[in-house]
Amino acid sequence: MSLSSVLEKIDQDLDGALERLMDLLRIQSISTDPAYAQNCQDAADWLVADLKSFGINAEKRQTPGHPMVVGHVEGDGPHVLFYGHYDVQPVDPLNLWHRDPFDPAIEDADGVKVIRGRGASDDKGQLMTFVEACRAWKSVHGTLPCRITFFFEGEEESGSPSLIPFMKENAAELGADIALICDTSMVAPGVPSIASQLRGMLKEEFTLIGPKMDLHSGHYGGTALNPLHAISAIVSSLHDETGRVSVEGFYEGVHEVSDELKRQWETCGFDEDDYLGSVGMSKAHGEAGYSTLELQWARPTLEVNGLWGGYNGAGSKTVIPSEAHCKITCRLVGDMDPVHVRSVVRKHIEARLPQDASIKWDNDIDGAKASVMNINRPEFEAARQALSDEWDREAVFVGMGGSIPIAGLFKDILGMDAMLIGFAQDDDRIHSPNEKYNVESFHKGMRSWARVLEALSR
Amino acid sequence: MSLSSVLEKIDQDLDGALERLMDLLRIQSISTDPAYAQNCQDAADWLVADLKSFGINAEKRQTPGHPMVVGHVEGDGPHVLFYGHYDVQPVDPLNLWHRDPFDPAIEDADGVKVIRGRGASDDKGQLMTFVEACRAWKSVHGTLPCRITFFFEGEEESGSPSLIPFMKENAAELGADIALICDTSMVAPGVPSIASQLRGMLKEEFTLIGPKMDLHSGHYGGTALNPLHAISAIVSSLHDETGRVSVEGFYEGVHEVSDELKRQWETCGFDEDDYLGSVGMSKAHGEAGYSTLELQWARPTLEVNGLWGGYNGAGSKTVIPSEAHCKITCRLVGDMDPVHVRSVVRKHIEARLPQDASIKWDNDIDGAKASVMNINRPEFEAARQALSDEWDREAVFVGMGGSIPIAGLFKDILGMDAMLIGFAQDDDRIHSPNEKYNVESFHKGMRSWARVLEALSR
Repeated sequence: MSLSSVLEKIDQDLDGALERLMDLLRIQSISTDPAYAQNCQDAADWLVADLKSFGINAEKRQTPGHPMVVGHVEGDGPHVLFYGHYDVQPVDPLNLWHRDPFDPAIEDADGVKVIRGRGASDDKGQLMTFVEACRAWKSVHGTLPCRITFFFEGEEESGSPSLIPFMKENAAELGADIALICDTSMVAPGVPSIASQLRGMLKEEFTLIGPKMDLHSGHYGGTALNPLHAISAIVSSLHDETGRVSVEGFYEGVHEVSDELKRQWETCGFDEDDYLGSVGMSKAHGEAGYSTLELQWARPTLEVNGLWGGYNGAGSKTVIPSEAHCKITCRLVGDMDPVHVRSVVRKHIEARLPQDASIKWDNDIDGAKASVMNINRPEFEAARQALSDEWDREAVFVGMGGSIPIAGLFKDILGMDAMLIGFAQDDDRIHSPNEKYNVESFHKGMRSWARVLEALSR
Repeated sequence: MSLSSVLEKIDQDLDGALERLMDLLRIQSISTDPAYAQNCQDAADWLVADLKSFGINAEKRQTPGHPMVVGHVEGDGPHVLFYGHYDVQPVDPLNLWHRDPFDPAIEDADGVKVIRGRGASDDKGQLMTFVEACRAWKSVHGTLPCRITFFFEGEEESGSPSLIPFMKENAAELGADIALICDTSMVAPGVPSIASQLRGMLKEEFTLIGPKMDLHSGHYGGTALNPLHAISAIVSSLHDETGRVSVEGFYEGVHEVSDELKRQWETCGFDEDDYLGSVGMSKAHGEAGYSTLELQWARPTLEVNGLWGGYNGAGSKTVIPSEAHCKITCRLVGDMDPVHVRSVVRKHIEARLPQDASIKWDNDIDGAKASVMNINRPEFEAARQALSDEWDREAVFVGMGGSIPIAGLFKDILGMDAMLIGFAQDDDRIHSPNEKYNVESFHKGMRSWARVLEALSR
């Protein structure tokens, strides 16, 4: 079966592929907020219909949360499972978007054509690169070079509560030779990248409670415990002055990066000045003594993602609030155990509660260990070559600062290795206002998957 | 003119007075939020109509902000000015109210009849005690025992931006022998109290800016400056471990309380256990080495009233936010100068900004010095005697932790001393959900003013 005719078909149908992606981007499938549950159903329905339109046997499958989409198609080569997610992050702060996040458009950004909208990069645009590659194969050859299982979830941005039960219940159906995942970025513009290690994640949330009720700062200023002062002292105790996490036992299971890997990373094309400078940083603010790439890929973090209490409206309110709130995520590396990390973080915080304060933990939290890929499998070298051909630049194995627990779950539950290939860029503003995906990422991403499928079929 | 017939009239007309107060409480005159500007106009209109209904020559007077109400009536005795405010605090968090804050009602609270609703105590209920006392005098005698100027403002809860210009422009019209102010509380239930010192106030608000945009905590966790960490470190640096404010120069102008005053305060009826215990505190959390009353009345404070940044919605969002925000109020005592305090607080905070962070101050802030009353004037002893007669308990001179800048302004701009008499209780939950005013405070408050007017006329 000819690859070049498939690549040609992808080039010819680029406008059609963009229109389909726009349709999917218009669906407000925010998974963390229950108000958008119906939109998540709509996104799953859209994907089922789209897969069916070119002959995939696809179904929406309900879960206690948002639905899964599962599709099957026969093919000549090995059996691969492709994973992506159709849910997106919340869009606030809305006033920082320069267009409606769910009214996507192709924009010109300093001469670069980009697809602007929530989910353009994470992960609807990336997911569709694979779907479109399959559509082109099917259209040109009437068949596919591999047997493929499509597996899309709608809870990736909210901790995937239904994922493990669903995978366990449907293990036989979901098993394949290898999983392909498109939810990662390239280490530098134009440098095709295969992720070989991903950080894990632990989420925590707590409320610190002081006075029984909100108080007037005239009557109780200087006599009542102020929860905003107390929570600030706790948050500021979490790191020392060198940027290191101060929680005792936090670094258990963390390994230093080997000299060999450090050398690879030094030449992988990562542009440190651009990475830091583009967001207004003059230096890396993490632990002293580590390179910026080590901090991003191989060191654990403890970051406060939300902190609030008291009055935040217009004008002022002379209140001592009853409560203060904090959301935390930790990124985990090496053999760090989420259960252990949770326990030491909670112990650290509870030991610092002042008299008359109490704490309420949100128990609806989750964690996932870090993942290290099995890059000795032949599929990795085949894919690396295919990507190098498409991008005319040697593809590289890189680390990733983000957390994609699915890779570890495929291994743990289905005994299946995973290969993560993505075409996002660091400036895609994923999770932020004005998210975008370069049209080049989308176009060459589709072509890359056509090449990878062909390489795997050999 | 007989006082007893006026007191009798007040007793007979209690239901009517409560109904009128309910009407005023239904008006949503929140002054800090521009969305309620028309409601503030409505409250001023209501007061003008009410004053006119018993023969006061009253007018609404526009300002660049919310309007003033000014009324005049002749009388036989000295000329007094009565001040109150018709604006109220915001009502959030709304879910903690057990009824609509603007649908007031008389409720039974553990056997005590209370008026429940926003502004019931602060300050609509208190303001109406004086108005109703005048109405009763007028109704019984056809005249009043003093010449009275009524002066109500609608910006007390939002820093009174129009007050100083208005007082300067209308100094001749507003001048009187003494000002009466009803916006304070009793030191203990049933203990009539005249405030002899009030804390001043300084408001500050700032935004700490780190990264240029919101970032993904996978891509930038451990490398970008997290403004939530930075603002926590700054807030926690504002106090030392003994509760003392750590800002250099903050305590300039603070005086220790005299032994004589300490003795008076020890016997004034203040119930420390109830004051702390009713809000869940087992001890006073301010500076070590001071009594709870000293902390509340005679020591300065620096309290964070609002702190926020990042994601605070349902679920989680793995964001490193670009900004973090903080609202602060300081209570000032003695000769502390708000301009100096602002300067040392800003200097302290700016000196602690980490690399790559910047700060934006809200310049739309205001401050007022502390006030000490001239209790040697004969009107104070006359009022003290009148209050003691009504409450059957020796009235006391007390300090106040709150800030009522108007007292200082009357002195500075109009050369007029002020006397602060109020009937609120510490458990009135002013500025909090479920604000109330005891029906007894309202009823005996009206009777108290009738007695005070009579005493002043002698």
